[in-house]
Amino acid sequence: MKALGFSSNDTSAQLLEQSTPQATAHDLLIKIDAIAVNPVDTKVKASIKAPISPAKIVGWDATGTVVAIGDHVELFKLGDNVFYAGDVTRPGCYASHQLVDERIVGHAPTSLSVTEIAAMPLTSITAWQALFSRLRINKKHDAGKNILIIGGAGGVGSIAIQLAKKVAGLNVITTASRSESEQWCRKMGADHVINHHSEMVLQYRTLGLRDPDYILCLNDTDRHFAAMAELIAPQGLICSIVGTQQKHDLDCLKSKSAGFVWEFMFTRSMFKTSDMIEQHHLLNTIAKLLDDGILTSTLNHVIGPLTTENIEKAHIKLLSGSTIGKLVLTSI
Amino acid sequence: MKALGFSSNDTSAQLLEQSTPQATAHDLLIKIDAIAVNPVDTKVKASIKAPISPAKIVGWDATGTVVAIGDHVELFKLGDNVFYAGDVTRPGCYASHQLVDERIVGHAPTSLSVTEIAAMPLTSITAWQALFSRLRINKKHDAGKNILIIGGAGGVGSIAIQLAKKVAGLNVITTASRSESEQWCRKMGADHVINHHSEMVLQYRTLGLRDPDYILCLNDTDRHFAAMAELIAPQGLICSIVGTQQKHDLDCLKSKSAGFVWEFMFTRSMFKTSDMIEQHHLLNTIAKLLDDGILTSTLNHVIGPLTTENIEKAHIKLLSGSTIGKLVLTSI
Repeated sequence: MKALGFSSNDTSAQLLEQSTPQATAHDLLIKIDAIAVNPVDTKVKASIKAPISPAKIVGWDATGTVVAIGDHVELFKLGDNVFYAGDVTRPGCYASHQLVDERIVGHAPTSLSVTEIAAMPLTSITAWQALFSRLRINKKHDAGKNILIIGGAGGVGSIAIQLAKKVAGLNVITTASRSESEQWCRKMGADHVINHHSEMVLQYRTLGLRDPDYILCLNDTDRHFAAMAELIAPQGLICSIVGTQQKHDLDCLKSKSAGFVWEFMFTRSMFKTSDMIEQHHLLNTIAKLLDDGILTSTLNHVIGPLTTENIEKAHIKLLSGSTIGKLVLTSI
Repeated sequence: MKALGFSSNDTSAQLLEQSTPQATAHDLLIKIDAIAVNPVDTKVKASIKAPISPAKIVGWDATGTVVAIGDHVELFKLGDNVFYAGDVTRPGCYASHQLVDERIVGHAPTSLSVTEIAAMPLTSITAWQALFSRLRINKKHDAGKNILIIGGAGGVGSIAIQLAKKVAGLNVITTASRSESEQWCRKMGADHVINHHSEMVLQYRTLGLRDPDYILCLNDTDRHFAAMAELIAPQGLICSIVGTQQKHDLDCLKSKSAGFVWEFMFTRSMFKTSDMIEQHHLLNTIAKLLDDGILTSTLNHVIGPLTTENIEKAHIKLLSGSTIGKLVLTSI
């Protein structure tokens, strides 16, 4: 198989030729059609401190076809089209082929292009888990409540807005800092867009809405912590996906019986939790919602095929922090 | 009416003679039969920095009889026996009579003595909300999971152990630091008791159990934060009722997608949340569980009638931090 690997944080990707791995147990061997890039790719690359060999294959967001299966596979058969994020503790998708545990793979939507599909898995899992597993939003009982999504135009924000609005029936207030990203958030379904660069609390309060029952932070958690603590409604929950460098005052949430919870997409696969298969089920649900036209792909730009040059372009764009929607690359 | 009031933090309670207040709107006027003391009593007393007049009536845990009702009252009638914690922003229960909003009052159990009843409302509301509203424990789906209750022998711990074990069906691991409190925790229904004064993580792990899906902290949150973060299972939630003085590192919970949430019993009444009436419903449920013998009263000691001397004794005992179960006083 072919792959792109990094032997250190300071070097460009290099093209690798490796023997294609064997599918065993619950693994599927997938021939990859398209991938998307995510901040986790550059974070894992940055963690390679010393030159390593073999080079590390990053990337956890892909669609492709099942070409071999392990002995215990029950959910898929050869030839199935699938989409998945995968497991950050195993080799990634900057490759022609990849092994992934069937319990974290979904059947791909049937009515979208491979690039539209590749844009979806990692961010859909993240947003779904944040809303429904971490914030415990109940699709039946919580409709009509307010959610503030800080940083709505990125990959996770683009699908979180759609899920919060179209699946959970929430009133969605989101933040963006440029007119281009504001327009994108409205297209995704946001009811209100404010600017997180200037006095977010004041801007939120100016809307005349009840304080948010839920806050989903997809931007700088350290920077926004105090504002989130001020805004969150009594009995509300804040969820973030962006790690903190600083310690924080939890006591300011106490009189409101409020809380703070993390969403990390890879928790289930990393700890092999007993409910790992929930990622299979939720990806199938996402596929149906896409095929039914309730959700739309958050694909914004296809960079081209998976080459060393195109990956470098994609990483530069990601690191600028100004990505809108998703960046996708076609097969190697 | 008669009451005991504090005009400053440095003086003893003084006996007050005041005109009995009128019940309006959703208020019930209750003639009090017995009360329980709680840490919030001494905390509110300690917050009286300058001498004030009239003196402040503290205490939020009582049982009594409805002797007058406001125009909008729908849930109760004259003569009903009730139990309630009340609203910390209004005068408390160190008194012969008290006004309380009907939406935070429950019908008293019918098979218990007034002192057994007075022991229950504040701690039952706290424990119920912590388990079922903050930790979002689902009585149907979460049976068999592990909960660690830090500080199991106090008022909240004594009923939290019972609710976690007998209502939610959880496996209950609790902590106590003396053999007397350990025995009490086992009597309340704890499956395992460890000592929170010595290497709690190691002691928990020695039990050979899966890491706790839930942690309820009823003891020093600052002191136990790091141990709780280490122990909590992936996708788990920590709830505390004890305020923090220090800032804390939330990032150590990130890879587990874990979270931290507060329970403050007075949030609903303080913010007049739209679901305030849930306290009425949950108190009625607690009364039925007590009458059915599923829960038992956590009363441990009846100090005597509500006098200035007995309140001083009760506060000294509370401030020692070694209270087991609940301390109750009979009517003034």
